[in-house]
Amino acid sequence: MKKDLLYQHGTLGALVPGLLNGTQPLSELLTHGDFGIGTLTGLNGELIILGGKVYQVQASGKVAEISSGSVPFANVHFPDFGAPQPIEARTAQVVQTKMLAQIGTRNLFAAVSLHGRFAQVRARAVKEQHRPFPGLAATAADQAVFSRQDVTGMLMGYWSPQLYAGMASPGFHLHFLSDDHDFGGHVLDFAGVTGELATQRFSDVQLHLPAADTEFLQADLEGDLLADITKAEH
Amino acid sequence: MKKDLLYQHGTLGALVPGLLNGTQPLSELLTHGDFGIGTLTGLNGELIILGGKVYQVQASGKVAEISSGSVPFANVHFPDFGAPQPIEARTAQVVQTKMLAQIGTRNLFAAVSLHGRFAQVRARAVKEQHRPFPGLAATAADQAVFSRQDVTGMLMGYWSPQLYAGMASPGFHLHFLSDDHDFGGHVLDFAGVTGELATQRFSDVQLHLPAADTEFLQADLEGDLLADITKAEH
Repeated sequence: MKKDLLYQHGTLGALVPGLLNGTQPLSELLTHGDFGIGTLTGLNGELIILGGKVYQVQASGKVAEISSGSVPFANVHFPDFGAPQPIEARTAQVVQTKMLAQIGTRNLFAAVSLHGRFAQVRARAVKEQHRPFPGLAATAADQAVFSRQDVTGMLMGYWSPQLYAGMASPGFHLHFLSDDHDFGGHVLDFAGVTGELATQRFSDVQLHLPAADTEFLQADLEGDLLADITKAEH
Repeated sequence: MKKDLLYQHGTLGALVPGLLNGTQPLSELLTHGDFGIGTLTGLNGELIILGGKVYQVQASGKVAEISSGSVPFANVHFPDFGAPQPIEARTAQVVQTKMLAQIGTRNLFAAVSLHGRFAQVRARAVKEQHRPFPGLAATAADQAVFSRQDVTGMLMGYWSPQLYAGMASPGFHLHFLSDDHDFGGHVLDFAGVTGELATQRFSDVQLHLPAADTEFLQADLEGDLLADITKAEH
């Protein structure tokens, strides 16, 4: 249980051509951390992992606690956050600037956890995709978008330095889960936050690839994938 | 001692603007593997690590076994190679094609180890750089190049998928050490090989960053570093 290590299953670049099959069971993923984000086979829902519990925000808007399923892509770690700092900000941009300041560098991977009250949160969940899986850019267009006013919950996720853009979405990748477990998803925007922000930076990142998955081993991942990643994740 | 894990200290992108200071002592590096490649502070020499022994090919051409020093960049692992396969090839290009075939995928990190007789090997060692350190492209021009005919030794190193071009040199990164420990370096070219090739692929890569190094934490690593990496490493 290494506290300064971020664990990642799968690589973002493999989602671009449509390798959306789950290649690691949740039970195995959770041995590497009890806090994190991810998605299931077919990008079926946005996962928020807190205290070892896995919440799936479905494209219907429903939030379900789940205990089985496999992830094509996920990040988890064992929390060892620094002391939470009070934060108050009007825009997502200001929050992200404050997150980076609290992390203290753009060059390490880091986790963020912001619990508080939000005047507005806009989040999305991709609709479950089926074989033959489309590429990531197409799935990003096939999503449900939810908005909620005056919601209390947890904004959480990871900062990835730009240098690793092929394996992780560069910048912040944030998910949200309301305290009443009634709303959440992959965060598109938010505003009017009052809460507490905690950050944790990592000296080590362990990238775990689906080494036994024939589709992955044979895929052509050498095109210009970064443009599609940027398009799909923002 | 995880056999399917490649350990890397430092990130290739940080060498580009000249972060050439050693940030991990060899003694610590060797706890993560006894086979590998790397370099010392100021890119002082090309390291070949075999059986836990560290050989430094200096810009003078001298090969020294060393036991201290710090690495800005290195890869190590604990060998668990598959059965060696006989290999005979006229050119480096054919050897690399055979290496990839034996690895069986371009999408995982892998190690290669080719012991044999070489009709020719051309290798380089960068000259030790001093502060203020130049960028990687400049150091690549400031190197000594050595050639040797009819030499028996070990060609070894790693395959990194293109997707991770910011953290590792995409493609093969190969070093050479002659059996008599009299010749070696970062391999530029070779020809006429008869030997045995063993490969090992990794499900996991652990990237260890210099999380306590102020220069690293504050560096601007968000430019277009890949062009410089390609220029310097090939």
